[in-house]
Amino acid sequence: MSNELTILKLGGSVITDKDTPETIDDDALDRVVAAIADSNLSSLVVVHGGGSFGHVHAADHGVSTTDGSHDPTAVSAIHGAMKELNRAVIDRLQAAGVAAVPVHPLSAATRNESGELTVVADAVQSLEAEGFVPVLHGDLIAHAGLGVTVLSGDELVVALATELDATRVGICSTVPGVFDVDGDVLESITSFDAVAAAVGDSDTTDVSGGMAGKVRALLSLDGHARIFGPQAVGSFLAGETPGTLIDGSANAE
Amino acid sequence: MSNELTILKLGGSVITDKDTPETIDDDALDRVVAAIADSNLSSLVVVHGGGSFGHVHAADHGVSTTDGSHDPTAVSAIHGAMKELNRAVIDRLQAAGVAAVPVHPLSAATRNESGELTVVADAVQSLEAEGFVPVLHGDLIAHAGLGVTVLSGDELVVALATELDATRVGICSTVPGVFDVDGDVLESITSFDAVAAAVGDSDTTDVSGGMAGKVRALLSLDGHARIFGPQAVGSFLAGETPGTLIDGSANAE
Repeated sequence: MSNELTILKLGGSVITDKDTPETIDDDALDRVVAAIADSNLSSLVVVHGGGSFGHVHAADHGVSTTDGSHDPTAVSAIHGAMKELNRAVIDRLQAAGVAAVPVHPLSAATRNESGELTVVADAVQSLEAEGFVPVLHGDLIAHAGLGVTVLSGDELVVALATELDATRVGICSTVPGVFDVDGDVLESITSFDAVAAAVGDSDTTDVSGGMAGKVRALLSLDGHARIFGPQAVGSFLAGETPGTLIDGSANAE
Repeated sequence: MSNELTILKLGGSVITDKDTPETIDDDALDRVVAAIADSNLSSLVVVHGGGSFGHVHAADHGVSTTDGSHDPTAVSAIHGAMKELNRAVIDRLQAAGVAAVPVHPLSAATRNESGELTVVADAVQSLEAEGFVPVLHGDLIAHAGLGVTVLSGDELVVALATELDATRVGICSTVPGVFDVDGDVLESITSFDAVAAAVGDSDTTDVSGGMAGKVRALLSLDGHARIFGPQAVGSFLAGETPGTLIDGSANAE
């Protein structure tokens, strides 16, 4: 594995029209795809969220990261919709010259009885080493005792960053960073308490936890990450430092 | 993992019309699906081959178990066609009351520089433990130095049987067993030399090696396996002993 691996997360709300079921935001997806293609990064893993493909079906079937299902048709609906979105993202990346290939978490990730996540990154690592850009996504995964539960794209980014020892982790959200109580973008966050008042609780319509969940998940990283908006994807991939730095390691030291 | 796990392989030639690209043999698939549903097995993993979904695309892109590709559009064509077939198999199994869910080898299996296969079966095992029937398939997988190569359904069965410590392994082929030189079904095979004259070389139109490849792969199993025809799926799942027994362990002892 290269020492310079970048993981880029594309928020589901960024690349889909979150108010219309199973609808891609064509212009937004084209812009981030162009930024990825222009970056010409040789060592990149992409993760995307569910947006209007995943969340609607997850809500329909009553599953979340902690509420499970043993219904195989829930798997077909949710995992199937996520694979459809994944295929659209990959097709556009390939059309733009990026060697994108799919990796589906249901086939490689599990939770134990305590809800502890294991992501087996062997295939991601081998595909990346061969020059491909693996594209993963939020998904359903086996959860001991609960059937299947939701794996959020943010959880997946954190697990992959650790497994693959990623150098840079970027989260492209709909907003240009994490806002403080006055609506200004914070430079950096080193603990959840410092921003709890501003980011609030999880958005209840988002099974993966909204901005509060994102910040909490990224603070658990051994390294650090950046949250930025769709306009800053190119800047982040070029090595610049847009948006908000999330650095839980500073606090842990 | 249950001590009574059964792995059933459905040959690509059994469930597809191998002469017509991307065409399912509806009647044949319905019959094996009905046999699986009737068996009511609580601990089952299904693997299916590529038939007219996988092999045509693999030939088009010049990939086999040893010839690789770094072209991401080859992955989309071959892996995409296999996921389409997998979805059809799963939809019919679910409609018949089987809790079938997909697991895609590209996301969980790799080959190293020597071509040695690693199949990470964590997700299969966890899904099976939760009462689902994982349905896997021949696929492309990352291969160090070669990009991606073909993983045959037969190789996958052998690897999974070992990883999951399966009690019973059954291979449903288009023929009722392995024929001897007179065209009679052999009772058992314990070494390749004994049947080389009858099974011949690999069928060159089949990237995964035809009957010779199947026999070779199954002889490498620590336990044993059976090869039988589509009419015998129910009998095999009911615990009977149709077709030809392949038992390489007898020879190795």
